[in-house]
Amino acid sequence: MRLIEATGATIASQADAINSAELVVVAVARRFYDALPLALLQNKVLVDVSNRDDAVRRRSVLSNAEYLQELVPSARVVKAFNVLSAYLLETGGIQGSKEVPLATDSESARAKVVQTVRDLGFTPVDMGPLRQARHIEDIPLHFFRQWRGAFIVVAVIFLVGYVLNFIKFQLCHNLTKNETWDWSVFKQILMTNFNRNLGVVALTILGAVYMAGIIAAFLQLYRGTKYARFPAWLDRWLRMRKQLGLLMLAMAATHGCMSLGIYHPHHQYDWLFEPPKTVRAEVKVNGTFEVQTVDIWQHHPNWRGEVFLTLGAVTLCLLSILGISSLPSVTDRLTWREFSFIQSKLGWTALVAGFLHNLVLGWDYMLTAYDCYFPTGLQYALYLPLLCFIGKLILLVPPVNRRLVNIRSGLISRPVSQA
Amino acid sequence: MRLIEATGATIASQADAINSAELVVVAVARRFYDALPLALLQNKVLVDVSNRDDAVRRRSVLSNAEYLQELVPSARVVKAFNVLSAYLLETGGIQGSKEVPLATDSESARAKVVQTVRDLGFTPVDMGPLRQARHIEDIPLHFFRQWRGAFIVVAVIFLVGYVLNFIKFQLCHNLTKNETWDWSVFKQILMTNFNRNLGVVALTILGAVYMAGIIAAFLQLYRGTKYARFPAWLDRWLRMRKQLGLLMLAMAATHGCMSLGIYHPHHQYDWLFEPPKTVRAEVKVNGTFEVQTVDIWQHHPNWRGEVFLTLGAVTLCLLSILGISSLPSVTDRLTWREFSFIQSKLGWTALVAGFLHNLVLGWDYMLTAYDCYFPTGLQYALYLPLLCFIGKLILLVPPVNRRLVNIRSGLISRPVSQA
Amino acid sequence: MRLIEATGATIASQADAINSAELVVVAVARRFYDALPLALLQNKVLVDVSNRDDAVRRRSVLSNAEYLQELVPSARVVKAFNVLSAYLLETGGIQGSKEVPLATDSESARAKVVQTVRDLGFTPVDMGPLRQARHIEDIPLHFFRQWRGAFIVVAVIFLVGYVLNFIKFQLCHNLTKNETWDWSVFKQILMTNFNRNLGVVALTILGAVYMAGIIAAFLQLYRGTKYARFPAWLDRWLRMRKQLGLLMLAMAATHGCMSLGIYHPHHQYDWLFEPPKTVRAEVKVNGTFEVQTVDIWQHHPNWRGEVFLTLGAVTLCLLSILGISSLPSVTDRLTWREFSFIQSKLGWTALVAGFLHNLVLGWDYMLTAYDCYFPTGLQYALYLPLLCFIGKLILLVPPVNRRLVNIRSGLISRPVSQA
Repeated sequence: MRLIEATGATIASQADAINSAELVVVAVARRFYDALPLALLQNKVLVDVSNRDDAVRRRSVLSNAEYLQELVPSARVVKAFNVLSAYLLETGGIQGSKEVPLATDSESARAKVVQTVRDLGFTPVDMGPLRQARHIEDIPLHFFRQWRGAFIVVAVIFLVGYVLNFIKFQLCHNLTKNETWDWSVFKQILMTNFNRNLGVVALTILGAVYMAGIIAAFLQLYRGTKYARFPAWLDRWLRMRKQLGLLMLAMAATHGCMSLGIYHPHHQYDWLFEPPKTVRAEVKVNGTFEVQTVDIWQHHPNWRGEVFLTLGAVTLCLLSILGISSLPSVTDRLTWREFSFIQSKLGWTALVAGFLHNLVLGWDYMLTAYDCYFPTGLQYALYLPLLCFIGKLILLVPPVNRRLVNIRSGLISRPVSQA
Repeated sequence: MRLIEATGATIASQADAINSAELVVVAVARRFYDALPLALLQNKVLVDVSNRDDAVRRRSVLSNAEYLQELVPSARVVKAFNVLSAYLLETGGIQGSKEVPLATDSESARAKVVQTVRDLGFTPVDMGPLRQARHIEDIPLHFFRQWRGAFIVVAVIFLVGYVLNFIKFQLCHNLTKNETWDWSVFKQILMTNFNRNLGVVALTILGAVYMAGIIAAFLQLYRGTKYARFPAWLDRWLRMRKQLGLLMLAMAATHGCMSLGIYHPHHQYDWLFEPPKTVRAEVKVNGTFEVQTVDIWQHHPNWRGEVFLTLGAVTLCLLSILGISSLPSVTDRLTWREFSFIQSKLGWTALVAGFLHNLVLGWDYMLTAYDCYFPTGLQYALYLPLLCFIGKLILLVPPVNRRLVNIRSGLISRPVSQA
Repeated sequence: MRLIEATGATIASQADAINSAELVVVAVARRFYDALPLALLQNKVLVDVSNRDDAVRRRSVLSNAEYLQELVPSARVVKAFNVLSAYLLETGGIQGSKEVPLATDSESARAKVVQTVRDLGFTPVDMGPLRQARHIEDIPLHFFRQWRGAFIVVAVIFLVGYVLNFIKFQLCHNLTKNETWDWSVFKQILMTNFNRNLGVVALTILGAVYMAGIIAAFLQLYRGTKYARFPAWLDRWLRMRKQLGLLMLAMAATHGCMSLGIYHPHHQYDWLFEPPKTVRAEVKVNGTFEVQTVDIWQHHPNWRGEVFLTLGAVTLCLLSILGISSLPSVTDRLTWREFSFIQSKLGWTALVAGFLHNLVLGWDYMLTAYDCYFPTGLQYALYLPLLCFIGKLILLVPPVNRRLVNIRSGLISRPVSQA
């Protein structure tokens, strides 16, 4: 039995190859394991690099590596390398900092494979006994596990916002304002509604990111200790802040781009600009000219337009810095003090700037509920940030703040009763 | 003979320093190697950190490290550290994840230098025997090796597109449309033509990225095996997809920026906006007023303008996510399933969105070849994406798809005949 | 004495736990060290993970780790892990490439902890004897140490520019031009002045980045050697170039965003567009119509507008590439030749493009000093880049260049006299 390569050249007999090898890498699918030359593999260090597919997982709790160990009990099976993709290895897309988890019951085999991982330029991470292969084999199947919760939250809020927008600007507008049904407003369901909703949802999510910390602080104050676990929902919320923040950044950036394309006095935002010159002139209507008045805009922003645009640009600039500091290689270089300054101080500043950006735009609509008595998106967008500010202000009151600092440094701790 | 530092203080005699050292780092240029105190270096571990310049490479196949080994045969020469730049070391620009390749013929020296590299916080990568120093010494001279092919492809396509644009909009426009030669259109050769071409070429390149995979799939179907090598041109094409994609992203982003600066009904894109009010009024011509008609735009996008801008923003947002996921430290954190979802599913979505973005803009020009019977850039831009869609649809037909899946999982493999 | 977890279950007695442990991690605040069961800790490897706060640092020069060593002289104290934040460990925000500095006086304990750091997937960096814990404990307190200088420089230049803008456009405008005080120009102090100043300062800072290298080259030419130290101010300037560059990029990007929002013929930039149609018509003034002339802009950029916008987009695109190449994980993958090409060649190209972008906009104002005899920001912005170009041209004169190359390769070196 001989290994034949594409060139047709004989390289070595399988037996020779295995006998002379220090490590044998088993790179076949699990269903072919029993076709392996098991006798030759006795007493060898076997590196199982396979991945489990869903079909296998349903049939058996055993990982592929444990199954291989059962087939060749005298071998020292090591699970490793399954997280490296052939494609990225070939194109050089992964290097040094890529972590390779490994698991084995043999200390000698572990040392050997750890060394091999390092020699190949990756970072070995020992996960313990071979049983952990079950976990390791699941890693390549992970699909944005940390992102799923955040994505669902953002998607639901976006949809709710979008439907509210639709009810208000397309349905109610027609039901309450017009005598005849006006189809022209339906063209806005793509860009105008979408962009409006992007901004509203981005600000709400940014509020949600900081709200989690506020609630956690109040809970610690109420419980008088930092040693009790947070309820599961709050714990999940706290853990999804990074993902919420990055999804929010994508929305805010898209909102910025789209807004620049439609930022014009004629496009609804007339109160951000100096009033137009209204001219009485002969205007062409159905081929003939009749006297009408026409608005001629000079595109001079008024003070409100200047403030509005500046706040939008500053918010996006701050959020971008937050996003860049979340890149793994950048986070690695920041000290904790720097990281928390960016995520906390700069983040709160961005929340305030975004809040004002919205407030300047929507000032006149803040207290009215026109069209079907619905509040506008410009109002919704402020609810959560406003709650954050109120919560934060309470937490900054000196005695409250002092107590919180003491609880967090472990100096105060009421006997744990809720746990 | 004594080492004198800038301060003038005596530190140690060279002989003392070398005798007491475990490792000697040789940090002088190759042409001064024979001036080294070679007798003192006998039996030492010598770390050669030099780089080869082109002049040296032309004169000798030997690497600097091999040359040093020849000069001091009893020493254990190790090639290492030449990829670290003094500038970045000094400013702290490189850390942990930086790979340091090393080569030596001595196992004991290798272990010692590997340890030293690790202690300094870098990732050693063992390249094998000292002969490999030839390769290691070439690394600092590499100049975007992986990028060169992609850059040339993009540059050629850009130039061709630009020349076609020039022929059509500057030359043909004058030759076929105007009675007198109209120099005013030549002002467009910078921004308007440039920006137009950026969009067209970006979409074409995005098509080219996915076309490579389509062709590879058809070839595998035709050959009935995945074990035959792809022809060299296809292999190179497949390998340059990442670089093509990133150059495309730079073009798409620049196109987005520039377009926002010129997105206005008056600037050619009148069919994306509600029609202007045409007014008959006294217009100033050469100092006197005469009655003319003037268009007064209200800048209200029509449904087409709304769809167009939204699709553009969505495409750019998706492409940005693809770009961010290509950053090494981000790729490292993604599982293969996540990475391929982003590069494949999100990427195809971006291609569809970009295709529609173009189609909505150019719908009226799709079937006409005005001005010298030339198709427009808006048509060129769709050729390659359209071919991709057709290819992809064929590959998604259930029996074809099933066969491809079987071939790719190695279950079908016609005996290799082409190899 | 027993360890009680939140669940209330007994886990192990403290004595048992310590006796059976190979490493003991001391994770309590320094002020509680004397309450530790010191007798049990004798002869153990103690890992001190604490951080020093400012209060402690003022009271004692000793690091926490040294203080612990004094308390338990027979233990082998190792300082490590203090740079890892609990928050990031928990959320998986840091991995492989994170560096963990450690210090100890015991070689055996060092080896053990180095191994532990590696097994946890981090990169150990040996800082030497335990005394170095003083430095290690200060790391988490670092607050943008490399950024502070650059930030102050940028902030001062920005403020000076802003004040000059204010004097010119708000004060002088009123003092010299108007008969009555015109409050309307004060609305511009947010967006218009801010954005104008962003562009001016960004270009000045980009000039400052390259000026440092020019001065260094002239100094080397004058001294005739590269072996003399640069004066401290130049050394600091050279070292802050990366930070200056990144702050400049943030300003340039914000300038780009804001400019797109206000890029319109009516908004001051009328000389970048084709002239408007001036119409004589009945314009509404205070409710009644009277005959006036009105400008109706067609928003067709002229050649100058086309060139101006293109140069702005190209500059920003080039600067973005410089910024991306400064991300740690990207820098790691670049060879020195590639890195210096991007930072030097592309950077100079960006400086030239930004210079021309400004020159095209401000051409008519280059030689005039209107309003209080003040030059405009458009002039200030060119001072430093212009000096760079002159300096660079001198350095490129063949004999000067040849001498500089010889000095930098160490072939020429006048005896050091200044040192």
